[in-house]
Amino acid sequence: MAESGVHKLVIIGSGPAGWTAAIYGARAQLGPVCYVGVPKQDPGPVLPGGQLMLTTEVENYPGFPKGVEGPEMMSLFQAQAERFGTRIVGEDIARCDFSKRPFELHTAGGEVVRAHAVIVATGATANWLGLENELRLATSGGGVSACAVCDGALPAFRGKPLAVVGGGDTAMEEATYLTKFASTVYVLHRRDQLRASRIMQERFLSKPNAKVLWNKVVVDVLGEQTIRAVLLEDTVTGERSELEVGGLFVAIGHTPATRFLRDSGLEFDDAGYVLLRSRSSATNLDGVFAAGDVADARYRQAVTAAGMGCQAALDAEHWLNARGLV
Amino acid sequence: MAESGVHKLVIIGSGPAGWTAAIYGARAQLGPVCYVGVPKQDPGPVLPGGQLMLTTEVENYPGFPKGVEGPEMMSLFQAQAERFGTRIVGEDIARCDFSKRPFELHTAGGEVVRAHAVIVATGATANWLGLENELRLATSGGGVSACAVCDGALPAFRGKPLAVVGGGDTAMEEATYLTKFASTVYVLHRRDQLRASRIMQERFLSKPNAKVLWNKVVVDVLGEQTIRAVLLEDTVTGERSELEVGGLFVAIGHTPATRFLRDSGLEFDDAGYVLLRSRSSATNLDGVFAAGDVADARYRQAVTAAGMGCQAALDAEHWLNARGLV
Repeated sequence: MAESGVHKLVIIGSGPAGWTAAIYGARAQLGPVCYVGVPKQDPGPVLPGGQLMLTTEVENYPGFPKGVEGPEMMSLFQAQAERFGTRIVGEDIARCDFSKRPFELHTAGGEVVRAHAVIVATGATANWLGLENELRLATSGGGVSACAVCDGALPAFRGKPLAVVGGGDTAMEEATYLTKFASTVYVLHRRDQLRASRIMQERFLSKPNAKVLWNKVVVDVLGEQTIRAVLLEDTVTGERSELEVGGLFVAIGHTPATRFLRDSGLEFDDAGYVLLRSRSSATNLDGVFAAGDVADARYRQAVTAAGMGCQAALDAEHWLNARGLV
Repeated sequence: MAESGVHKLVIIGSGPAGWTAAIYGARAQLGPVCYVGVPKQDPGPVLPGGQLMLTTEVENYPGFPKGVEGPEMMSLFQAQAERFGTRIVGEDIARCDFSKRPFELHTAGGEVVRAHAVIVATGATANWLGLENELRLATSGGGVSACAVCDGALPAFRGKPLAVVGGGDTAMEEATYLTKFASTVYVLHRRDQLRASRIMQERFLSKPNAKVLWNKVVVDVLGEQTIRAVLLEDTVTGERSELEVGGLFVAIGHTPATRFLRDSGLEFDDAGYVLLRSRSSATNLDGVFAAGDVADARYRQAVTAAGMGCQAALDAEHWLNARGLV
């Protein structure tokens, strides 16, 4: 948009938090503009709609007793935001200048967007092991992925042994999903017990082709064009061994998408999550609010992100009202 | 149940927070037992399902772009909780003894229920003006109500002038609803501007039979068997006047349903809302968690309550796991 116009409210991000903020912001007649591109920062997939776009069935978002597909759910959220007049822009915000009032947001395309209030709802993205061959094969389509649900059903993985690194709920979810396609799914875990909840562990282990290899770390990924094996090291004995696999799925947590805000003056915790004040969505910067996984390393659920998005819109409305900016 | 059994998790309440806690608790195999009766404490309606049972269309709960009826939404939540194995008990908890471990919850019917962890999700109930004739006519079906959506469509109110006391979003919502049935709807407000959000004000004022009377307080409710008029006092001039109405709807806020917990050792704020620790659902009592409007005077939305219910279940699961109680 032209520099002359100033939006009341700009929302960055389009997962459950962003869309819920948009629904509430639009109903409150704040004319929200939602930038749906997640700012690029990692080799992982960058998706409008957030992490739910990588999920198949969501069975714990309240209101859908039969479950709902992640992308379908995000379509419903988006339709609801649009129904009340949210304007959607398919562009990334590359940098925010919160030192100016109104705030100045710089798009990846070089435009300047001005806004009185901003809600950061950019979510989080997957972590990687950091091995040279892992990243080489991940970025070249060589059989290494951080998203089983995006990639697991590809023909290249059918009927092959696959490995999942991790021990949390997400790792179990991804591993369980892969049992549909793989000959065997190996969960590789660095300790002798998993962090995942019991239900998720049991769900995985109930599959006939599910195996957990304990006390194992991946020290290299082997293969030229495509992965052939992973090189494992036993954390107890130090012994090294090769495990032949046709795919490696990395499921070791997430990093909040805040890199584009690094020099914005916003306060973060040590892991880069936006720090919120008290029980509200307020940040250290007056007029900047945050919601969803970008500010929540603890719960990270669709419904908690949605709740936070609602809070952020109500907080922003209150803040704008109090300053006569609406 | 018999005193010998100890539940892992008991949830008190059955609004968005309670059902979401049940969905998450059941999926985590905590075998949650949900007491759906809201403990009686006020003359207002006491309803399993919470305040949404008194609501018609909910258009801001994300996932329903065409809106959803409040009771239908609560049915969906309940079905989802039941799908994963929540046990539902249609009884009130009258008193909680949190000094014992496991906790002892006393039902209104005199049974003792024992639980390792408890989630309080009892919500909030409507406030009243506190006038003698108001309460007399409210409890006798004489045309005074705290719930337009429950009672407004009754034949007794059709085609009559009706009054709504209040100035917030709920008052606007109730007043707008009543315009469907009344000859005129008068919003009576003690100040010269409303607290309600702009969209809710505009929605009410767009109705041809909508009126706001500024600077008015109700000092008495007139009528023997049924209401005939309200006696108003102008807060600026002190002048008194009668306004003939066929019904009075009180919409002046809510009180958290915590009276039954008064001597339980739980910490409350001055208004009786449960105090939570940091950004979690933890209360001052180890193993007691709270979620939804009972602990939130600020946002009070279905989606924020649901998010809090999710947090409470995850916090309870974590707490039970850490103590080997699951």
